[in-house]
Amino acid sequence: MALEIEERIVQFINSHRVARLATADAAGRPAVVPICYVFNGESFYSAIDKKPKRVDLMQLQRVRNIRVNSHVALVIDDYSEKWSELIYVVIRGVAEIIDPDESISTEHESAVAALRLKYEQYRSMVIDRNPIIKIVPKQVRLWSAIT
Amino acid sequence: MALEIEERIVQFINSHRVARLATADAAGRPAVVPICYVFNGESFYSAIDKKPKRVDLMQLQRVRNIRVNSHVALVIDDYSEKWSELIYVVIRGVAEIIDPDESISTEHESAVAALRLKYEQYRSMVIDRNPIIKIVPKQVRLWSAIT
Repeated sequence: MALEIEERIVQFINSHRVARLATADAAGRPAVVPICYVFNGESFYSAIDKKPKRVDLMQLQRVRNIRVNSHVALVIDDYSEKWSELIYVVIRGVAEIIDPDESISTEHESAVAALRLKYEQYRSMVIDRNPIIKIVPKQVRLWSAIT
Repeated sequence: MALEIEERIVQFINSHRVARLATADAAGRPAVVPICYVFNGESFYSAIDKKPKRVDLMQLQRVRNIRVNSHVALVIDDYSEKWSELIYVVIRGVAEIIDPDESISTEHESAVAALRLKYEQYRSMVIDRNPIIKIVPKQVRLWSAIT
């Protein structure tokens, strides 16, 4: 069963282009990076846009962290100097790494297609040969200065 | 001894207005929120801008997390649709909560003054009566699409 998320929060998520992803290692030391993502109403997907031979992708901090500690958090927000307008959405969830060669499932292919639809920058990048990070939200909260 | 940080990274940090702070609880589950901050060359300081009576400030996720797990990470970045221009700085460090009544030190007062200098929005807010989060960086990395 997918988590029920209010429609205005889904719209907020889908109208944004960048999130910041927090992961933590086995000792609970956090790491955080900006990421691009798609959300299909049930899960978030994020690509690894490194050239496969340039870095050992498995050694990327976020990938290493998720492999040993699946708990993650995402924040989506816009900063504004008008603090009364500040609003952000925090998603806490469980992540996994989906490898491209898991041929029993087309989830990897669907995620790559959705990412390339949302971000034309991905269309010329070999993200289809890289692992994809999948995040299943367990808690979603909207914070706004007004309420 | 303060960590040596390249001058261009210090400038990047000081020219930005928002960071995203990742903390984790005792079980290693991360949390992440947008924060405002000042950096004095040695430490980061961030205020808690809630009205003291409205929420029990000690119950704020980031405060609770830092009290049980001092490891934190900060990312400072601007998103751009020109991915070749993307650049971000990640700071990993150790955090502590500085209470306003710790009268042996003027560190809390200095942090409040620096925050009010950088952000005029704080000048009318009672951040001087709230705890301040202090972060001592242990590792600072700049990531850019170009290099």
